[in-house]
Amino acid sequence: MDVVPAAAHPPDRLLLGPGPSPVPDDVLAAQSRSMVGHLDPWFLEKADEVAHMLREVFRTANQLTYAVSGTGSAGMETAVVNVVEPGDTVIVGVNGVFGARIADTARRAGADVVALEEPWGRVIPAERVAAAVKAHPGAKAVAVVHAETSTGAHQPLEEIGRLLSDTDTLFVVDSVTGLGGVPLEVDAWGLDVVYSGTQKCLSTPPGLAPITFSEKAEAVIDRRRSTVRSWYLDVSAVRRYWGAERVYHHTAPISSVLGLHEGLRHVLQEGLEARWARHAEVGRLFQEHILDRDTRLLAQEGHRLPQLTSFAWPEGVDEGKLRSRLLDEHGIEVGGGLGEFAGRAWRVGLMGHGATHDNVDRLLAAIDELLDD
Amino acid sequence: MDVVPAAAHPPDRLLLGPGPSPVPDDVLAAQSRSMVGHLDPWFLEKADEVAHMLREVFRTANQLTYAVSGTGSAGMETAVVNVVEPGDTVIVGVNGVFGARIADTARRAGADVVALEEPWGRVIPAERVAAAVKAHPGAKAVAVVHAETSTGAHQPLEEIGRLLSDTDTLFVVDSVTGLGGVPLEVDAWGLDVVYSGTQKCLSTPPGLAPITFSEKAEAVIDRRRSTVRSWYLDVSAVRRYWGAERVYHHTAPISSVLGLHEGLRHVLQEGLEARWARHAEVGRLFQEHILDRDTRLLAQEGHRLPQLTSFAWPEGVDEGKLRSRLLDEHGIEVGGGLGEFAGRAWRVGLMGHGATHDNVDRLLAAIDELLDD
Repeated sequence: MDVVPAAAHPPDRLLLGPGPSPVPDDVLAAQSRSMVGHLDPWFLEKADEVAHMLREVFRTANQLTYAVSGTGSAGMETAVVNVVEPGDTVIVGVNGVFGARIADTARRAGADVVALEEPWGRVIPAERVAAAVKAHPGAKAVAVVHAETSTGAHQPLEEIGRLLSDTDTLFVVDSVTGLGGVPLEVDAWGLDVVYSGTQKCLSTPPGLAPITFSEKAEAVIDRRRSTVRSWYLDVSAVRRYWGAERVYHHTAPISSVLGLHEGLRHVLQEGLEARWARHAEVGRLFQEHILDRDTRLLAQEGHRLPQLTSFAWPEGVDEGKLRSRLLDEHGIEVGGGLGEFAGRAWRVGLMGHGATHDNVDRLLAAIDELLDD
Repeated sequence: MDVVPAAAHPPDRLLLGPGPSPVPDDVLAAQSRSMVGHLDPWFLEKADEVAHMLREVFRTANQLTYAVSGTGSAGMETAVVNVVEPGDTVIVGVNGVFGARIADTARRAGADVVALEEPWGRVIPAERVAAAVKAHPGAKAVAVVHAETSTGAHQPLEEIGRLLSDTDTLFVVDSVTGLGGVPLEVDAWGLDVVYSGTQKCLSTPPGLAPITFSEKAEAVIDRRRSTVRSWYLDVSAVRRYWGAERVYHHTAPISSVLGLHEGLRHVLQEGLEARWARHAEVGRLFQEHILDRDTRLLAQEGHRLPQLTSFAWPEGVDEGKLRSRLLDEHGIEVGGGLGEFAGRAWRVGLMGHGATHDNVDRLLAAIDELLDD
């Protein structure tokens, strides 16, 4: 390798995998604005606007709503380490990679994890949560994945929110792939800590994790007996920067915040309901048509995400080779299966800016051409 | 606030504070390249090039060299949580904000911290480290700050590196503000874990933390008895993505990595020695001239960073008002004092792209105009 490699100019890709999703030019351009300081009054005003827009998108009045300086998994860790103290019981729905990741993260934070395991592709029944809460009445939190990116399962949240609302147990929700793509009502559904990522249905480059904490969650955090195990993700310090005090904690990733500012403007200009409807329609269209190719959808019927479809190819189709050729010959990226779906499934994302009829047509035409070859 | 705020167009600022530093247009432009996937073969090649260039800039052959998906403080936390197990003794030099932050982070990771405190502005004498290592022969690590951004002190590293080289104790170095601005020789000086930030002497937007681990550090991590407390920052998993296996861990912040790619190209095109010499000359020039304004440099003589100068104004100068006017009337950002220097000191950064004679002239002229007013 030369000491100084050539400048990096990416090939043209149509991103129809599990993320990152396609990013509008205006959002990319916002990331190349001239640099400003993280304590500059102008930038603090933009950070306020980001928090304001995140509240709109999360459908919440929660004061403690901001963007974690890391990707979606940093949002997960922020949710977990601030809520959990060593010895706490945490009930986690595990029906895919990301539920398992919450359980792992919670154990590292010192939790006793009660894992509610369901087969991959299925959702966690509210009755199982109710039974677990009854068996562990002092549980600190229940955590589930709203949009399981590894399976395409769409977890219902309202009933669990209702059953936790008059308990001391917090409801933690992973909506990394949900936010902006399917309905999510943080306040109306009684969700206490919800985190997301920017590179899915918000169509913004990866690098930040939107997060929101209810007053109930803030009160629990304020009563902690032990210090949060992470310095970087400790909300008791971070909220002094995002809040009115503006106390320096760490340097905010300026360009990424400006990119998210523009990405959220796009989301709100389209309107949340319109965006949800577009995802629903385009995703359903793709799911109908891909079934005509002898495939099998892996998520439970009635609980399928429109923005992320996981499906198995019939025996005899070499999914890895097909996927490589789709990238090399057609410039289209899709995802392979994770975990137990590896080697036989695909994950197709029709997320954010990428959720269009035209993209469904391009993808299906490219698949058919490769299958006929 | 309107539901959808206007697009964000930053004011023009000359960034001469403690970071972020001015970013060249090519680096900003690299952040607005079209999006690609984090497992795209093209992107993985660019990530390899970033790791290669980081090895050049760190002066190391360490295989485990990459960019943490977070800002400099995430680099600090990555260094600490991977090395430290509960009950380990860690010796930390505390002579400013960032040494204190390492101590805090290490305690959260379960360490017994032996703090070697020195007055702000002074460096940690190697003899104190030698005595502490003798008193705590099983210490897991010694950690110091190479370039204390809160004081401008320039910590010598070679002697400490030598005295730790034939022990089992690791040498952890914070070079967030050092890398690319003053000499740093990871291999030649026997440094085991060194982390940095992008928004200082590398003149790249904030959002990533370059880090490198020696073979000695990797061996210590491989022998851990306990799981790393952070899932997001666990190098035993992250290195499977940055290494040859390319196993998905979390979505890399694509745009930021492409920005760093371009930023490192600039550093290597200039040449490290030339860059160090430029910082040394420009910083010395500013320090000579600011002393003519009745100020007092706060870092110990003989141990002053050229890229970050901390100085106290004489009694009667309202530093906060002067600093606001400098921003509002001249578009120049400098930093206020932190901690015990708050309210009486400034921190002036002449870092990366910002370290020029012209910027020294502009800053001094603006200061003189405001002082005469």
